[in-house]
Amino acid sequence: MTRPRWPMVVFCTPKGWTGPSEVDGQKTEGSWRSHQVPLGDVAGNPEHLQRLEAWLARYRPEELFDENGALRPELAALAPKGPRRMGANPHANGGLLLKDLTLPDFRDYAVEVPKPGQVVAEATRVLGRFLRDVMRLNKPTRNFRVFGPDETASNRLADLFEATDRAWMAETLPEDDHLAPDGRVMEILSEHTCQGWLEGYLLTGRHGFFSNYEAFIHIVDSMFNQHAKWLKVTRGIPWRAPIASLTYLLSSHVWRQDHNGFSHQDPGFIDHVANKKAEVIRVYLPPDANTLLSVADHCLRSRGYVNVVVAGKQPQEQWLDMDAAIAHCENGLGVWDWASDAGAPDVVLACCGDVPTLETLAAADLVRRHLPGVRVRVVNVVDLMRLQPASEHPHGMPDDEFDRVFTTDRPIIFAYHGYPWLIHRLAYRRHGHDNLHVRGYKEEGTTTTPFDMLMLNDLDRFHLVMDVVDRVPGLAARAGDVRRLMVERRAACRAYTREHGEDAPEIRDWSWPGKTRTS
Amino acid sequence: MTRPRWPMVVFCTPKGWTGPSEVDGQKTEGSWRSHQVPLGDVAGNPEHLQRLEAWLARYRPEELFDENGALRPELAALAPKGPRRMGANPHANGGLLLKDLTLPDFRDYAVEVPKPGQVVAEATRVLGRFLRDVMRLNKPTRNFRVFGPDETASNRLADLFEATDRAWMAETLPEDDHLAPDGRVMEILSEHTCQGWLEGYLLTGRHGFFSNYEAFIHIVDSMFNQHAKWLKVTRGIPWRAPIASLTYLLSSHVWRQDHNGFSHQDPGFIDHVANKKAEVIRVYLPPDANTLLSVADHCLRSRGYVNVVVAGKQPQEQWLDMDAAIAHCENGLGVWDWASDAGAPDVVLACCGDVPTLETLAAADLVRRHLPGVRVRVVNVVDLMRLQPASEHPHGMPDDEFDRVFTTDRPIIFAYHGYPWLIHRLAYRRHGHDNLHVRGYKEEGTTTTPFDMLMLNDLDRFHLVMDVVDRVPGLAARAGDVRRLMVERRAACRAYTREHGEDAPEIRDWSWPGKTRTS
Repeated sequence: MTRPRWPMVVFCTPKGWTGPSEVDGQKTEGSWRSHQVPLGDVAGNPEHLQRLEAWLARYRPEELFDENGALRPELAALAPKGPRRMGANPHANGGLLLKDLTLPDFRDYAVEVPKPGQVVAEATRVLGRFLRDVMRLNKPTRNFRVFGPDETASNRLADLFEATDRAWMAETLPEDDHLAPDGRVMEILSEHTCQGWLEGYLLTGRHGFFSNYEAFIHIVDSMFNQHAKWLKVTRGIPWRAPIASLTYLLSSHVWRQDHNGFSHQDPGFIDHVANKKAEVIRVYLPPDANTLLSVADHCLRSRGYVNVVVAGKQPQEQWLDMDAAIAHCENGLGVWDWASDAGAPDVVLACCGDVPTLETLAAADLVRRHLPGVRVRVVNVVDLMRLQPASEHPHGMPDDEFDRVFTTDRPIIFAYHGYPWLIHRLAYRRHGHDNLHVRGYKEEGTTTTPFDMLMLNDLDRFHLVMDVVDRVPGLAARAGDVRRLMVERRAACRAYTREHGEDAPEIRDWSWPGKTRTS
Repeated sequence: MTRPRWPMVVFCTPKGWTGPSEVDGQKTEGSWRSHQVPLGDVAGNPEHLQRLEAWLARYRPEELFDENGALRPELAALAPKGPRRMGANPHANGGLLLKDLTLPDFRDYAVEVPKPGQVVAEATRVLGRFLRDVMRLNKPTRNFRVFGPDETASNRLADLFEATDRAWMAETLPEDDHLAPDGRVMEILSEHTCQGWLEGYLLTGRHGFFSNYEAFIHIVDSMFNQHAKWLKVTRGIPWRAPIASLTYLLSSHVWRQDHNGFSHQDPGFIDHVANKKAEVIRVYLPPDANTLLSVADHCLRSRGYVNVVVAGKQPQEQWLDMDAAIAHCENGLGVWDWASDAGAPDVVLACCGDVPTLETLAAADLVRRHLPGVRVRVVNVVDLMRLQPASEHPHGMPDDEFDRVFTTDRPIIFAYHGYPWLIHRLAYRRHGHDNLHVRGYKEEGTTTTPFDMLMLNDLDRFHLVMDVVDRVPGLAARAGDVRRLMVERRAACRAYTREHGEDAPEIRDWSWPGKTRTS
């Protein structure tokens, strides 16, 4: 295919061009002294005022403006019209060029989940199949690319390479793999470059998807800031057509840096994003593969947002079949009836994030075994911004609905993927806030086993049960033996990791017992 | 001065050197396939297991280990001893080489403040004089440098150039200014490079100071993370000697981007820093020049922390003479008696940051004029981490002391420099938390006047008074006219900015009336 060649004009000018060549004996035009205010204090320095006047007079204003100070009409007529104007050119207003992606039905990629917790899958690998077919279906329109700092395969999205290659224009070696000049996966070990490419791609009316190691997306914090500010401001500009959302997948996350350790553990990009204006920010933590598919489909259809999706790549239990996943994502958060006792609970075990969800279900199992009189409700959060009041975020859940889910008077033990204080921040205006106890990542970590990471941060199942004993009124007195048992099992599991270098069989082999609600 | 030349050995090896040259027909040694695990599934693939064994056998373990598997003593004896070991070399354990800075008495640089609010000064310019003399006094030991992305002069630290120059080894032009190969101000418009230089300088046992535009320090979020993690981990390593703290001055801050606008407005680095481990993090927001001097002196003496200091560079009212400044910084936060009514207050007006402090004092003045029966207490926070409980941060104020300052039952209107939710996060365990109403930057901004910025974010004096009317029990009913007056004056000030392009004289010319406490 031949393509037109567009001429490009490169026009270099001296810094401060046409300004005073020197001021007070110092070179000014063509030097750093032209930055900002080349002639200071014109109100108090008559010589500077005279220099300023002479400078501006060189533009010959009498030829440009009429006796009323208005621009002469023959000059105004020289300006380009309509889409020839720089800002109105569709290439600078990419939303005008934007075409919807052709998306396959994400339900076709579902993991079969006959019962919760019986099937194991890698969520991002499942997503990779969906993205592969998004790539295939949109090749004719050439408007979809996937970006990532050399982690497309590491983040288990390698099925993409059945549909396309990595973009590569330079020399190739025989051992190279899936490199081609027309590849549509943009890989370079520079988050900055990926972010810049993707922003340009979106701003010119195309679609993209950006896959990252969670800890290292902080590299583009400052670039993200500017994009989020641009989205916020342009929402108020009527002639700006919305562009496709910027969607980050954060995988290889804080809880599974088994071999990389502390340097790779940082879930704080969510906090950084949450500081920006609510109307342009969305954050999702799908707990399994089917919810991830539903979230990804939603993100690829959205406009004008930054979507942050956090999802692990490791093999993990699947909880929801596709219909349940769609309904759960639609609600954004909700009670998992299949894991909850009927009626009013004694304690709410809430969770957000794939690893905390597994741990919460294991804790619910322990409560049922060891504290049989205690009624548990399990709540899962996939759309983090649902926690905020409706007055604070467009996705915010109305208070009465929130109160029905979380109760206003029962302890809530909340197991969260990231830094725990964000949950307090989002929920602090809620009626049940004083009952909320959040566990999350508190900056403790090293190169260790997955369960040891949870123990280091008091987010493990045993600690969650200890929190239940401590928080449910009356339990502290009568369930001291259960609390002691949890402390002992925790110590035993920790000792096992030190002796064997892996997690104890009781952790590794635990699976959801398939208990359905007691009603 | 001649210096020894140190030889440097550069040793390049192929990736995966000595590993299998190919695996399953694919080139491995010297290629990307050597990354991580070159031979997969050795437990299930006998050929891979055999290749692994052959690979490891090439190291001839029978020559290295004795019959018990222990390293042969004659080989162990080859390892270097004491400080010749790489990790024990003082150049890799810079704390061993660290010498205290020789510091001038910071009190000698004090701004004379005969009465609060009567003198105007630029806080960072005052700091620049102190830093200039720190530079002079430590030239003989060559262990102090100032770093900044080309903003040393813009951030009003230019007096440094009386003591040294910018480090510059390349060509110079006649119009250049203060460049020299032995300059000790490290300036480059790359926050990354400055941060990297400074980390290396500190890690090898020297001292530094890093001056930045507040919004753009996010560029090094990810680098800061790694340094903070290193500080946290090395606190637990007994042989690691503490290094000098990494001190950031964030100036040119969110509230005074009069000409730069929304892209330059982001106070979120404080939030980012606050996610890291409490024992290595310090955050200071001195409200004027003398408190800034006291904080800077403290930071330059500290070890093993990241200090974040936020201070504006614009001319602003000075509040505390040097003795009062020292006492205030010592307390970290406290009641400003000279601005407060005696006895139990009806409302606490708290503030943190230079611009919010000015605004809070202006609000206190308005309350006194328009709501004469309402007793006001003004509390200023200079050490942000004092807000946390003592259980959460080493600087945390004990609860009983906190309660005496903030009360447990009166409304607290808190005017904060940054994103308001951080104050809730730090204080949410405090008894008075439910009475706390925080105003701060809520991501509204543009290129506009200083007071318009405050109004856009509801942090202006009029809105603070409206908050007082809304929160003090009984006032909403009987002070409706005052509230309306505030709304009207706010609207008038906004209209003035739109007509004149600058703030109204009633704002520009306001000064603290010198009221002392009524007792």
